Amino acid sequence: MRRLDISDNGFEAAFRALVGETRDGGSPVDGPVRDIIAAVRAGGDTAVCAYTDRFDRPGLPALTPGDLRVTEAEIDQACSAVSPDLLGALDLAACRIEAFHRAQLPRDLEFQDEAGLMLGLRWTPLDAVGIYVPGGKAAYPSSVLMNAIPARAAGVGRIAMCVPCPGGVLNPLVLAAARRAGVEEIYRIGGAQAVAALAYGTRTIAVVDRIVGPGNAYVAEAKRQVFGQVGIDSIAGPSEVVIVADGDNDPHHVALDLLAQAEHDENAQSILITDDPAFADAVAANVQTVLETLPRAAIARESWDRYGAIILVGTMEQAWPLVNRLAPEHLQLMLGDDTRAFAAIRHAGAIFRGRHCPEAIGDYVGGPNHVLPTNRTARFASGLSVYDFLKRTTWIAADAAALGRVGPAAVALAEAEGLHAHASSVAVRLGQA
Amino acid sequence: MRRLDISDNGFEAAFRALVGETRDGGSPVDGPVRDIIAAVRAGGDTAVCAYTDRFDRPGLPALTPGDLRVTEAEIDQACSAVSPDLLGALDLAACRIEAFHRAQLPRDLEFQDEAGLMLGLRWTPLDAVGIYVPGGKAAYPSSVLMNAIPARAAGVGRIAMCVPCPGGVLNPLVLAAARRAGVEEIYRIGGAQAVAALAYGTRTIAVVDRIVGPGNAYVAEAKRQVFGQVGIDSIAGPSEVVIVADGDNDPHHVALDLLAQAEHDENAQSILITDDPAFADAVAANVQTVLETLPRAAIARESWDRYGAIILVGTMEQAWPLVNRLAPEHLQLMLGDDTRAFAAIRHAGAIFRGRHCPEAIGDYVGGPNHVLPTNRTARFASGLSVYDFLKRTTWIAADAAALGRVGPAAVALAEAEGLHAHASSVAVRLGQA
Repeated sequence: MRRLDISDNGFEAAFRALVGETRDGGSPVDGPVRDIIAAVRAGGDTAVCAYTDRFDRPGLPALTPGDLRVTEAEIDQACSAVSPDLLGALDLAACRIEAFHRAQLPRDLEFQDEAGLMLGLRWTPLDAVGIYVPGGKAAYPSSVLMNAIPARAAGVGRIAMCVPCPGGVLNPLVLAAARRAGVEEIYRIGGAQAVAALAYGTRTIAVVDRIVGPGNAYVAEAKRQVFGQVGIDSIAGPSEVVIVADGDNDPHHVALDLLAQAEHDENAQSILITDDPAFADAVAANVQTVLETLPRAAIARESWDRYGAIILVGTMEQAWPLVNRLAPEHLQLMLGDDTRAFAAIRHAGAIFRGRHCPEAIGDYVGGPNHVLPTNRTARFASGLSVYDFLKRTTWIAADAAALGRVGPAAVALAEAEGLHAHASSVAVRLGQA
Repeated sequence: MRRLDISDNGFEAAFRALVGETRDGGSPVDGPVRDIIAAVRAGGDTAVCAYTDRFDRPGLPALTPGDLRVTEAEIDQACSAVSPDLLGALDLAACRIEAFHRAQLPRDLEFQDEAGLMLGLRWTPLDAVGIYVPGGKAAYPSSVLMNAIPARAAGVGRIAMCVPCPGGVLNPLVLAAARRAGVEEIYRIGGAQAVAALAYGTRTIAVVDRIVGPGNAYVAEAKRQVFGQVGIDSIAGPSEVVIVADGDNDPHHVALDLLAQAEHDENAQSILITDDPAFADAVAANVQTVLETLPRAAIARESWDRYGAIILVGTMEQAWPLVNRLAPEHLQLMLGDDTRAFAAIRHAGAIFRGRHCPEAIGDYVGGPNHVLPTNRTARFASGLSVYDFLKRTTWIAADAAALGRVGPAAVALAEAEGLHAHASSVAVRLGQA
């Protein structure tokens, strides 16, 4: 964990290093991913099975194409294996996520303008999407809800889900979440091979139009490579939180919030910004105490030691430009009155306001999506939403009178661009050609 | 030009080939583009100048970094070189584009739900965007308006424009369009080197957050490679139009509309779908006649010969599924009453309705954007809009009472996912830890 103090001479250089840091850690995987995609395009199901056997099932019986899809009986069995309490929690989460995403649904535009043209913009859902649910280090049923429910709310007809099953093990809660979200087409595959299958199709897996959901470095690179063939969402990096907290907070709460982020992944990042040095000390001490109690202490400690940071500011107003430069995936504002802070923040994936709103609420039951832009991409990217599953078609309708009012300008511009057929196609309707 | 008849036995195979066809033509450029990006990252302005000299200025004096930016005097001079008529046409186009894009601006969400949480979604503009304007085979002032005006309407603070200037020649109308759109930061560079400069920055060119605008294969591949570092819009391919027209249309008009698309590029595609064989013949004959008159006949003829198609259907209802499978960038519906057709179309970038609304209207003065998804990507992608220059931040605020209503479910789900610190960060505030 680093401590930075805005009043230090070296602060700007140290903060710039923090902002510029990459936390991917791994070596480039574009070559291997290119090979996997080519193999799946050439070999279809057989290649998908072979990669799945190699990466997820060493020592287990070889998969055949007929095994790829999770059966209805398996989903039934999974659902009955989940406790009613947990199914209730899943249902509360699903209802809240659905309500928030339905509230986002945009409306079509249609109007006649002064020149007499009818102009419009129509939203339509995608036909088919692929949802990638990580299943490696941790399988997250909440991610199933967060990916599938916005697609359903948008009106997507077909949702195909891929979830890797290392060691052949299926997480029952993941399947229960899929059923709750209305997803019945589930494949027990992951990695670049799953992305390739969704993008190009195999005999068993029909192509989709867009692939969403976070994954490891192979999944991220595979999405980049299939982009254009299908749509993708943003490329996810390690998770991060920035907590802006004054000294009136309970340092134990803040320590837990920082470690909730750190326990995700060794490459996760937790940053506290405060104007109270004693509070900063208390949080740092609490982090060490809490670390003793965590089942995932090794991961959380590595994240905190390598990437954690506490930044001291002289006044809270100094925090807002720093937050905007960090453009964090998650931002907790734990202040007496955050009105000015909230107005000053321009770049953040999601904001959690108040002393009673830890980021974990947003991971599960808040309602907004937990698939969010990481690695400073909140400068230009947004969390998953119904917009990821809709597209726009604009339209223009004109009669002869309307064309008469705007057509001559089109003819002039087309001629200036040297596009004679463009110009003539308008001019002929104006009776000029 | 191919003729397909839906009543032929071989129709499905022939149509499938048409849908699956790639029209890129070129060889893969990912290696050269990777080299250019690496060189620009390492060498900054010097590398940008060297590539520009090599690709755009053979035989001309070498550029220095101080030459990269187009001067205000050059813009002044360009504006005074454009005729008042043309400036008027540009202004009419700009006003209409601005009005349509302002009408798209989305509204923030903010509401309290039944559990007492405050939930919200806030749109904010990007800080800085890069606009790529093609300047090779044809420099399009209309593209300047179509890229810059939505960014301005969204509230983007800084717009940096790159336009290649082959032979050192600047198109005055491009500069006039930039000024009309409020763009004053213009660089005379193009290709992968321009994309790299915008994404990674040089001493002269500050980094942007997102790069939009169509370009050649090098530009498209460079955008793909910098994606993640910055945002990008969709990857543009050759342009295309599908015209669905009944026999009551003037075949000469339709021929001009088909050739307006074909004159863009040898790889452009123009497809007519009709239920009237005699009309199809008349259009095909008119295409040949019009070709004799076009300054860009060589390009248009090559496009029409290689990629043009006329598809005969038995009834117009048979056309809609074909259109959806083609998911065309541009669709003209030239029918007596297009209500049912319009309702049945799910996938198209932009639709032009009626006999008096050629696609060229949308290229210049309609108001909706002319930067549209090509190559079947209208299945999942949309035309450029204010949404390309905005991003969403979601937010949640909770007090202790609200947390009490949703917190227990979050604790249960976090524990089920094995994320103990997540669970504790909520439980501690519920008084349970």
